[in-house]
Amino acid sequence: MPGSSYGECFKVTTFGESHGEAVGVIVDGVTPGIEIDESYIQVQMDRRKPGQSSVTTPRKEYDEIHIMSGMFEGKTTGTPLFIVLYNKDMKPSAYDDIKDAFRPGHADYTYLQKYGIRDHRGSGRASGRETAGRVAAGAVARKLLEHRGVQVVAYTKAIGGIQCETYDESIIEKNPVRACDPVAAEKMVQKIEHLASIGDSCGGIVECRIRGLKPGIGEPVFDKLDAELAKAMLSIGAVKGIEFGAGFAAAEMQGSEHNDPMDRNGFKSNNAGGIIGGISTGDEIVFRIAVKPTSSISVPQQTINVKGEEQEIVTIGRHDPCICPRVVPVVEAMACIVLEDQLKRQAALHDRGFAFESEFE
Amino acid sequence: MPGSSYGECFKVTTFGESHGEAVGVIVDGVTPGIEIDESYIQVQMDRRKPGQSSVTTPRKEYDEIHIMSGMFEGKTTGTPLFIVLYNKDMKPSAYDDIKDAFRPGHADYTYLQKYGIRDHRGSGRASGRETAGRVAAGAVARKLLEHRGVQVVAYTKAIGGIQCETYDESIIEKNPVRACDPVAAEKMVQKIEHLASIGDSCGGIVECRIRGLKPGIGEPVFDKLDAELAKAMLSIGAVKGIEFGAGFAAAEMQGSEHNDPMDRNGFKSNNAGGIIGGISTGDEIVFRIAVKPTSSISVPQQTINVKGEEQEIVTIGRHDPCICPRVVPVVEAMACIVLEDQLKRQAALHDRGFAFESEFE
Amino acid sequence: MPGSSYGECFKVTTFGESHGEAVGVIVDGVTPGIEIDESYIQVQMDRRKPGQSSVTTPRKEYDEIHIMSGMFEGKTTGTPLFIVLYNKDMKPSAYDDIKDAFRPGHADYTYLQKYGIRDHRGSGRASGRETAGRVAAGAVARKLLEHRGVQVVAYTKAIGGIQCETYDESIIEKNPVRACDPVAAEKMVQKIEHLASIGDSCGGIVECRIRGLKPGIGEPVFDKLDAELAKAMLSIGAVKGIEFGAGFAAAEMQGSEHNDPMDRNGFKSNNAGGIIGGISTGDEIVFRIAVKPTSSISVPQQTINVKGEEQEIVTIGRHDPCICPRVVPVVEAMACIVLEDQLKRQAALHDRGFAFESEFE
Amino acid sequence: MPGSSYGECFKVTTFGESHGEAVGVIVDGVTPGIEIDESYIQVQMDRRKPGQSSVTTPRKEYDEIHIMSGMFEGKTTGTPLFIVLYNKDMKPSAYDDIKDAFRPGHADYTYLQKYGIRDHRGSGRASGRETAGRVAAGAVARKLLEHRGVQVVAYTKAIGGIQCETYDESIIEKNPVRACDPVAAEKMVQKIEHLASIGDSCGGIVECRIRGLKPGIGEPVFDKLDAELAKAMLSIGAVKGIEFGAGFAAAEMQGSEHNDPMDRNGFKSNNAGGIIGGISTGDEIVFRIAVKPTSSISVPQQTINVKGEEQEIVTIGRHDPCICPRVVPVVEAMACIVLEDQLKRQAALHDRGFAFESEFE
Repeated sequence: MPGSSYGECFKVTTFGESHGEAVGVIVDGVTPGIEIDESYIQVQMDRRKPGQSSVTTPRKEYDEIHIMSGMFEGKTTGTPLFIVLYNKDMKPSAYDDIKDAFRPGHADYTYLQKYGIRDHRGSGRASGRETAGRVAAGAVARKLLEHRGVQVVAYTKAIGGIQCETYDESIIEKNPVRACDPVAAEKMVQKIEHLASIGDSCGGIVECRIRGLKPGIGEPVFDKLDAELAKAMLSIGAVKGIEFGAGFAAAEMQGSEHNDPMDRNGFKSNNAGGIIGGISTGDEIVFRIAVKPTSSISVPQQTINVKGEEQEIVTIGRHDPCICPRVVPVVEAMACIVLEDQLKRQAALHDRGFAFESEFE
Repeated sequence: MPGSSYGECFKVTTFGESHGEAVGVIVDGVTPGIEIDESYIQVQMDRRKPGQSSVTTPRKEYDEIHIMSGMFEGKTTGTPLFIVLYNKDMKPSAYDDIKDAFRPGHADYTYLQKYGIRDHRGSGRASGRETAGRVAAGAVARKLLEHRGVQVVAYTKAIGGIQCETYDESIIEKNPVRACDPVAAEKMVQKIEHLASIGDSCGGIVECRIRGLKPGIGEPVFDKLDAELAKAMLSIGAVKGIEFGAGFAAAEMQGSEHNDPMDRNGFKSNNAGGIIGGISTGDEIVFRIAVKPTSSISVPQQTINVKGEEQEIVTIGRHDPCICPRVVPVVEAMACIVLEDQLKRQAALHDRGFAFESEFE
Repeated sequence: MPGSSYGECFKVTTFGESHGEAVGVIVDGVTPGIEIDESYIQVQMDRRKPGQSSVTTPRKEYDEIHIMSGMFEGKTTGTPLFIVLYNKDMKPSAYDDIKDAFRPGHADYTYLQKYGIRDHRGSGRASGRETAGRVAAGAVARKLLEHRGVQVVAYTKAIGGIQCETYDESIIEKNPVRACDPVAAEKMVQKIEHLASIGDSCGGIVECRIRGLKPGIGEPVFDKLDAELAKAMLSIGAVKGIEFGAGFAAAEMQGSEHNDPMDRNGFKSNNAGGIIGGISTGDEIVFRIAVKPTSSISVPQQTINVKGEEQEIVTIGRHDPCICPRVVPVVEAMACIVLEDQLKRQAALHDRGFAFESEFE
Repeated sequence: MPGSSYGECFKVTTFGESHGEAVGVIVDGVTPGIEIDESYIQVQMDRRKPGQSSVTTPRKEYDEIHIMSGMFEGKTTGTPLFIVLYNKDMKPSAYDDIKDAFRPGHADYTYLQKYGIRDHRGSGRASGRETAGRVAAGAVARKLLEHRGVQVVAYTKAIGGIQCETYDESIIEKNPVRACDPVAAEKMVQKIEHLASIGDSCGGIVECRIRGLKPGIGEPVFDKLDAELAKAMLSIGAVKGIEFGAGFAAAEMQGSEHNDPMDRNGFKSNNAGGIIGGISTGDEIVFRIAVKPTSSISVPQQTINVKGEEQEIVTIGRHDPCICPRVVPVVEAMACIVLEDQLKRQAALHDRGFAFESEFE
């Protein structure tokens, strides 16, 4: 019930604080007999890690993973995978002067209200660093999804008001903001660099597409596929909204426009975003999330301290002026985790005892 | 794991199909010793029931509830509340001609893909009728929240492109679309009536405000308060998006604009929408959802049947041309359920054994 | 989290009090497309119902079930089955004089301590009547297990010190105590009738055998098959202990005796009771439970009332002098529920996406 | 759903194999603001660790714990505690010759059947070594229980047929078998040493007493306190049975004997073992578990290999000839975890919003 776990059949539990000894994850319910190596997971870690470009935080973490259980001779055994990343470049003392004050936009105040105690160093558990464990678990899910022909790709759609006008998937990993439009990408980098120079930050839109998922996946009533994806995305720190398919635009549409007609080749449009009644249609799943501007800025802001006294605060430390490029792999990771969980739930529902034959016997 | 339950400490499980014998809910984890009567719950049922105005479906269900367990001498006993509504005005035969064809926008195709079988009568389990059980459970949660001073109010913010320009809470329940602006409300009714006359439908925006919730409520990491609210809202059939506080507009803001400064009186703005780091700030919680246009329209649409043959389809039956007015009480119900669950989880977290003294002894 | 639900993939939630309007169950996660009719379930209900013989309570309940959802044209749809039994022969006034006193052996005192309020009529939720919902759910699980070739049979092994010396499965349902030895059965009936005549009661041992379960079923570490069966059995009101295979006798054995050797035909003995490391071996699963004597006796006993005053109490009402015969179908039902849940969990674990092909497409 | 987690409000997830890099645990839902240090936990680890006396395995593990998250300045923060023990004295090659054969009594065969792959080194995940994580988590729970005045003590009651005749709690930790009777303890040591010398092993009985638990704790219906304790105990590798209070002896008692009468001072006997209707009575909770003889023996046994060929096997490696002394701290740990979880669940049930006041504000 405490909130550090996600999933029913494919279960992910993270631990760790920004400036503690380590962060990591236990992944339980991993299909046994699957070949996976650390380098496969490391690829995803490297996409999330800090310091990867001029537009990300200069904190230097190599985010090197260690798998400590659940593997035998290069294959998963079906027992919990434990994956750890030791923190290296910690500077807890950098947070000394914000120990007693609440940074606007940060979870400082709410954590203290919730727990009556807080680890103020680098936002503790509320730090984006917690997502490292998710990305590791997401890489495991991604490997399992490969066996089902499912692909998940996310990218930056907009930053600080600059929209991508074209869609070129091949360039996403080739520009530092992970945008799908090279022209927009360049403008975005300039905008971020400018904001960084004046100590400010900006938000953006990240879009995600899921392909190859067969129709029929998702658990009505409360655990609908879109409901679970929404939960998973809103569980990422800076995310303030989500929409599927036509999304908020649907609010201004008429039924005759919004309904997706079918012919023998499938759906003729995809306003639904690939999910109807909480279940996949077999069409591409498309959703977008709103990412707020990074809370850590060096522009002076008004706040109070733990004694309730008013004061000005300037957030120093090492931060991303725009978190979108590093949110992209987290979005993909969470989507992979949700999908793998729902696929396993579907398998459970339909099992009549014929699904698995042990290799032995 | 199957998806018909929501909640950890305050647990809601619904059952029932649109044209089956009954729909209803089991609510487990209800605080014992609370006075509640059927009329308190019935008030909420009446807000959701069909046939309440010219802009809703003419299906005639009185949605009269029966509490069959968990009560003793007018008080909750702490054992499961079972609340049932017998279906009365069923016309399953009205669905005979869509038995083998997939209505665009409906879950017909996806249910068949998921289960390999479907109850086609009035959308079966995918019908909005399932939400009757949620509204009953939500009323129980609302009663418990009253003991904590928490209020939840939702209303229509926009319909078919017509926006509310003013906010007058007192008129919400006095207009058939449950809008917060009387002028807009009138235009909305006209628009809906027009669309109904041509067999079409429209979508809208519903907004929800939560007041009186103390700071510190919400479970990091995966079960953040906004993540749970997002899941709960997206689990409502026609909802295609959600945003908190500034929401999607945050994507175009800078940190210095979006961050909510604090002074000794609290937060000076509420771009966060009352939740930071997944935990309540104590400020008003505000979110909006996008509601798609009703899928059931009598405009001819192209589709296929269960044999994969193309055909035209006209959805007859009794439907709401715009579902927003009836979504409003469902949104409130789900918000109440989420809040009660999170409050109980907070109580569990902090318990050191001094919380409860039995009245006996 | 409240305790009225069991199961992860095959989820059972019961409701109802002894002298409320109804008792029943929601079963979620039922494999779709399975033919099942009410009469199949009714057979199991009739084995549990009161008043079935001279050795059971004279309360007259026909325990007629109604399936109100989750079925379509005689087949399960995969949506929640809701099964209700309306209470008929209620005599709540019969409990008026024990309203304020705690019956020894009953949950009167503990319920009041837990909830601060109690429905004293016929033990309310703590009544054996709650198990009616379990038996209905168990019958559904039993039908699913039939598709896998799994059989579950329980029977009375001992009552009041009288042990079964022989094992004849064919006579179990042919004697009122459901013993496996006809000679012992007769003595048991005499003993029960004698105790009933003097207002006393007795306990016994119920044994359960599970056949046809393939090896490999059970979830290490905490959700071992024997751990789940133990939980399920101890969740039955009067059960005070459980042992698997050699059970408590194993405490006096040496490893060379207790270990079950294998040859090419399988295990050569079954001291393990069919479960090793929490996982089925493929051999017969065997466990025994200790059933305490019925708490309701008309022999005067010393107790206190809600004011803490000492008094004598005589439990009147309609009771079983020995609960074993009616526990037998409950044991089978709970075993079926546990097995179906674990089988579905195994299917989820191994799913690589090839398990289910929709009939459509 | 995969089985490596226990608990709803106080949630424990273990990972690790016997001869992998590390074993450990994530504990989520820990009350914040509690002082706890590693040495407090280490005390319990030392009671479970191998090599502590002549009657335990000579494997040399110091079982030194590291807390890597969830602590700040000596206090719990309410975020997940992550506790790891790196394995030191691994000898995986010692298991080379049993790589392809199934040791009788071990989970070798069942793990292969379940997963289709197995880590054969020292039983992998099925090893008693997994319980190290449980003992660490149990120590955290024990600290929280101290705040409530709850004590949990377990001890060896019988080994290889030798029964404790007296009960002296003060000597339990002063004899290598953790028996409660010094005379019996000496005989037990002799018996174990004799069996070790001939390569055989023996079982025993461990008893547990819980004091100071207020009445009213436990969750009807399925999650009864005794049901949860039964599950927790049967989830320990070698445990084959459990009984509460009079236990199996209750099967031969009459109601007038078994029922515990009350007077103004409380219960006058404790046949119930401190739990009625699945809820604590406030009296001492007493249960006993049956521990099977250690499966690893060097007496030759008949078995088959992975090809199905018959062969003889002699289990070498480093093992405990009787596991009871080391099971004692595991029993206590699991009992502590169950109790803390149930206490938190009770707090959640009763919360009306007055339980916690943040230290800030």
